[in-house]
Amino acid sequence: MPIPALEIEARRGAALRDGVKNGAGMRTLWNERFAQRTRRMTSSVIRELLKLTEKPDVISFAGGLPAPEVFPYEQVRAAADTVLATQGQIALQYAPTEGYLPLRELLVRHMARYGINVRAANVMITSGSQQGLDLIGKLFVNPGDCILTESPTYLGALQAWSAYQAEYLTVPIDDDGLDVERLEEELRAGPKFLYILPNFQNPAGVTLSLERRRRLVELANHYGAPIVEDDPYGQLRYEGEHVPPLVRIDADYHHGTSSEDGFTGGVIYLSTLSKTLAPGLRIAWIVAPESVITRLVQMKQGSDLHTSTFAQMVAYEAAKDGFLDRHVRRIREVYGERRNAMLAALRRHFPEGVRWTKPLGGLFLWVTLPEGFDSTALLREALDREKVAFVPGASFFPLGGGERTCRLNFSYCRPEVIDEGIRRLGSVVKRRLASRG
Amino acid sequence: MPIPALEIEARRGAALRDGVKNGAGMRTLWNERFAQRTRRMTSSVIRELLKLTEKPDVISFAGGLPAPEVFPYEQVRAAADTVLATQGQIALQYAPTEGYLPLRELLVRHMARYGINVRAANVMITSGSQQGLDLIGKLFVNPGDCILTESPTYLGALQAWSAYQAEYLTVPIDDDGLDVERLEEELRAGPKFLYILPNFQNPAGVTLSLERRRRLVELANHYGAPIVEDDPYGQLRYEGEHVPPLVRIDADYHHGTSSEDGFTGGVIYLSTLSKTLAPGLRIAWIVAPESVITRLVQMKQGSDLHTSTFAQMVAYEAAKDGFLDRHVRRIREVYGERRNAMLAALRRHFPEGVRWTKPLGGLFLWVTLPEGFDSTALLREALDREKVAFVPGASFFPLGGGERTCRLNFSYCRPEVIDEGIRRLGSVVKRRLASRG
Repeated sequence: MPIPALEIEARRGAALRDGVKNGAGMRTLWNERFAQRTRRMTSSVIRELLKLTEKPDVISFAGGLPAPEVFPYEQVRAAADTVLATQGQIALQYAPTEGYLPLRELLVRHMARYGINVRAANVMITSGSQQGLDLIGKLFVNPGDCILTESPTYLGALQAWSAYQAEYLTVPIDDDGLDVERLEEELRAGPKFLYILPNFQNPAGVTLSLERRRRLVELANHYGAPIVEDDPYGQLRYEGEHVPPLVRIDADYHHGTSSEDGFTGGVIYLSTLSKTLAPGLRIAWIVAPESVITRLVQMKQGSDLHTSTFAQMVAYEAAKDGFLDRHVRRIREVYGERRNAMLAALRRHFPEGVRWTKPLGGLFLWVTLPEGFDSTALLREALDREKVAFVPGASFFPLGGGERTCRLNFSYCRPEVIDEGIRRLGSVVKRRLASRG
Repeated sequence: MPIPALEIEARRGAALRDGVKNGAGMRTLWNERFAQRTRRMTSSVIRELLKLTEKPDVISFAGGLPAPEVFPYEQVRAAADTVLATQGQIALQYAPTEGYLPLRELLVRHMARYGINVRAANVMITSGSQQGLDLIGKLFVNPGDCILTESPTYLGALQAWSAYQAEYLTVPIDDDGLDVERLEEELRAGPKFLYILPNFQNPAGVTLSLERRRRLVELANHYGAPIVEDDPYGQLRYEGEHVPPLVRIDADYHHGTSSEDGFTGGVIYLSTLSKTLAPGLRIAWIVAPESVITRLVQMKQGSDLHTSTFAQMVAYEAAKDGFLDRHVRRIREVYGERRNAMLAALRRHFPEGVRWTKPLGGLFLWVTLPEGFDSTALLREALDREKVAFVPGASFFPLGGGERTCRLNFSYCRPEVIDEGIRRLGSVVKRRLASRG
């Protein structure tokens, strides 16, 4: 049966047909159809680097990987077995989008010990903190909206929000975190929200001081600017005293420090089990006012229906009865030793003129090379000559800059490997310095 | 230290402070900041209904839940144990965004048996098919872009794409699936892509005939319109012969039926382990040309980094060595019996003038009530009087209509419960008919 309209299109069809070979000829069919939002999206530098540095003879400080030595294998194995033996019908079935209620309740109790007083209705489980950031973007960001971030800031947040065509306002950091004296001018530009990592920041490893936290909350309140607080590493402190999270300080600001009235709703808070239990489970959570949780649940329905029931129940079963707190003590010990090893190695192997942060916790420290250095060129040389890797700092700056900065991870490698890796990296830096005369 | 600029804002701050009580006073802080895309997003009717029908005395045909009786508990339990005992360091760690390679290779072999000849580079693992749909929206849909769907179509796809402000063109279906004779006019409007569920469609249970598949592929090629083929139930056929998927028919169209050259890239194909293994693992996959997979991987990096390594490895370990095929035979048996039970019950308990589809597979059948019926009002009465639930069909129509249609799930309830539920539902329909005189 002939279709007149088709005949007009016949040549086009034939051309397509001729050009097709294992999908190659069809490239234009899909690739010319990409949405505008994809124009600013490129593959994460970190992810691409991770591929390059997976060779076994490379010492990599590039990733943000927890040490496999501290994974609680037996605890997770026993948890999985218990869950499937006793509650398989729930664990393998579809589940509510907001997450497994006993896990949300456990997280409520967990957070209460850090001064965050919320109810399960304020908590939604996400597939890693990355999904929390994505859903925040989906819910709040119109193309062109400005988000105020630290500079440098977490690359994954930039990836998440650039997909919604966010723009950025930035405030620099120093050893005490965000420079709050530079904050006000940016707040007056009316950002949609502030994005802050107050504890052992990724990438720079710095911690926002208590005084600055109070000032930040005061300023944010005066300008009516809501805060997104990202706290993946809060429990991983290796020295000094815990500093209350912004969500707690905001409660104090509104209710007074003595009040039990915990949650103002002005701060959306994110945390994760990836650094305390295991990243492979992809279990994180987001705390927000109920009216925001309701909308985040709608967003998540469209994004992935819900996070793996099985993974949520295994995480709950493994974490309950105080295991998480006992286990975190062990992680602190191991990572604290590795941080010390890296700081000692830097003092030993790095030349004068290089500066680095002294993180009180977390996974990363931040190196600033002398004027004129380009850390991307340095990485290339470090990989070629010495088989050692790190992440050049520039990609963490939303508005550019940071060309002579580097992020180094200290959680993944054993202390003796850290020393050797820093020795190698130091030799590349020294060679470059020498060649400049 | 006084801040002049803050004084101007003092009253506003004080007002905010006074109004705050457990997050309630802060509602406007976030809620006035929702992105424009949220305006069309409401909570899924299905998800809200699921909550209402969770009471134990309600017989629910509303969900799309697999039967817990067919979950492979022991297989998954043994798989979890093996994975954690032998490969815990991988299972609990971060993993590549595109997915666990042995699982992707297993899926390649699995699809080859259905005539889909692709390589692992064409396959990305997603957190359920819902995420596949979301990432397709993120990659391709600009606000206002038109997507051509069947009418009715899968509600989850509409939820995913409405978040990217998609518009819809629709073509009606009949007992042989999409009415291809009505397709050409809509194709000429230039949709971004066609979205089709050819097998045992959700919601209507109908299957696109081979002749119509060929015609659809021919038309899509002539108009240069790419296809998204969603195939969650393809293996769950209870009678008749397997019909090749569109991705295979497109290959035949370009290369001839005898060619081994399998993948043209013109069809993006989605499938899932949710209906054959277990939905609680959230493991599905997407097949696309490599250049599209590369971009989907970027999108997924920003969305959730990767799907649970542990869940992927457990799915692989459970599914390998032909278990999935053996297990699917058992599911077919159980669901086939339940489909038969529902069809028999409908004949037994439903009055004349009501029509329903006779699905050859899948989870759903589709009831059309006599003229003048409103299935949403019927649901309310069915829940109140008879404690039986289904999904009113209207929400599956992107452009409205379908007020007298209902989606009934037959996979979840046991045969005797199906008979009782259909009896109850029939009595509500009869009462309504009688009251109209």
